[in-house]
Amino acid sequence: MSKILVETSARHLHVTRETLDILFGEGYELNVKKMLSQPGQFAANERVRVVGPKGEFPAMSILGPLRSADQVEISLSDARTLGVTAPVRESGDVAGSAPCTLIGPNGSVELSEGVIVAKRHIHLRPSDAEELGVENGEVVSVKIDAGRPLIFGDVVIRVSEKFMPAMHIDTDESNAAGCAGEVWGEIIK
Amino acid sequence: MSKILVETSARHLHVTRETLDILFGEGYELNVKKMLSQPGQFAANERVRVVGPKGEFPAMSILGPLRSADQVEISLSDARTLGVTAPVRESGDVAGSAPCTLIGPNGSVELSEGVIVAKRHIHLRPSDAEELGVENGEVVSVKIDAGRPLIFGDVVIRVSEKFMPAMHIDTDESNAAGCAGEVWGEIIK
Repeated sequence: MSKILVETSARHLHVTRETLDILFGEGYELNVKKMLSQPGQFAANERVRVVGPKGEFPAMSILGPLRSADQVEISLSDARTLGVTAPVRESGDVAGSAPCTLIGPNGSVELSEGVIVAKRHIHLRPSDAEELGVENGEVVSVKIDAGRPLIFGDVVIRVSEKFMPAMHIDTDESNAAGCAGEVWGEIIK
Repeated sequence: MSKILVETSARHLHVTRETLDILFGEGYELNVKKMLSQPGQFAANERVRVVGPKGEFPAMSILGPLRSADQVEISLSDARTLGVTAPVRESGDVAGSAPCTLIGPNGSVELSEGVIVAKRHIHLRPSDAEELGVENGEVVSVKIDAGRPLIFGDVVIRVSEKFMPAMHIDTDESNAAGCAGEVWGEIIK
């Protein structure tokens, strides 16, 4: 296996218990709209208005389950729409990232940080990593031969028993590669 | 020389004499805001509201001088905002491309076609092409080592005495490469 499924992550957010309480009401539970490729992860029915200094997205999807920190993942095109300077970061690394306002049906939350552009990455299980001869934290390139052929450099490998093998790119990257339908990339070391 | 200046084209439109008459009034002349890298080409002060089935851009820049056909150049992210299916095409190849509505201070124009995503390309003079050992219509790859390193494949070479050497990419491609400030690419044959 040197082929990897390439999935496009559209803008979305992850929220904490506390934030969900404020946005949707005390003790509110997310409703699963669709399970995602990574085990246990899902797109919720619930949507939030995300507001920046210059623009907003009126109905951004929440991905569940709940997390220990709020995180809004957007593309650099989206960052321009909102009017924020969002850093390209690995998920979870939100310190000093961009601010925004979240507005739900029950209330709103001012995030002083949490808005990032997700750094492109590949999820692998330990068995996949061994087969590919790569390890957690390694940086590889991935060739994608979709509508607009290109090779992405600086792709981080992330390994966990909890993952399923998939590469995640944002909508700018997906559009730059002309991705449509099911897309597979080739890992180049 | 195997290095090429990489310029990001934000969404913009080109209009005909007839369309400018309708949008801004009979005999109206564009006012130069800023000259562009390609000789004679300029960004105008004049802006147009561009409307699609799902969304709009309230103030898209017109690039001059006037052309023989209307053409709206957007990114695939922009196409989703407008709600149109815009094909990736070389400039001028607008047959059967996406429709939109243009609204100016004096009137509006329904375009049945003209909305495209510009295919990435490189402008060269004949002397540049000779130096690089490439020719008009040739397809090359370009390595960009900006914030998010990658190699763009399927880059078309266009040669004319009227050009200055520059590679043009759209905002999705620019964001996927993490371009900021002055960026140079390396042509790979």
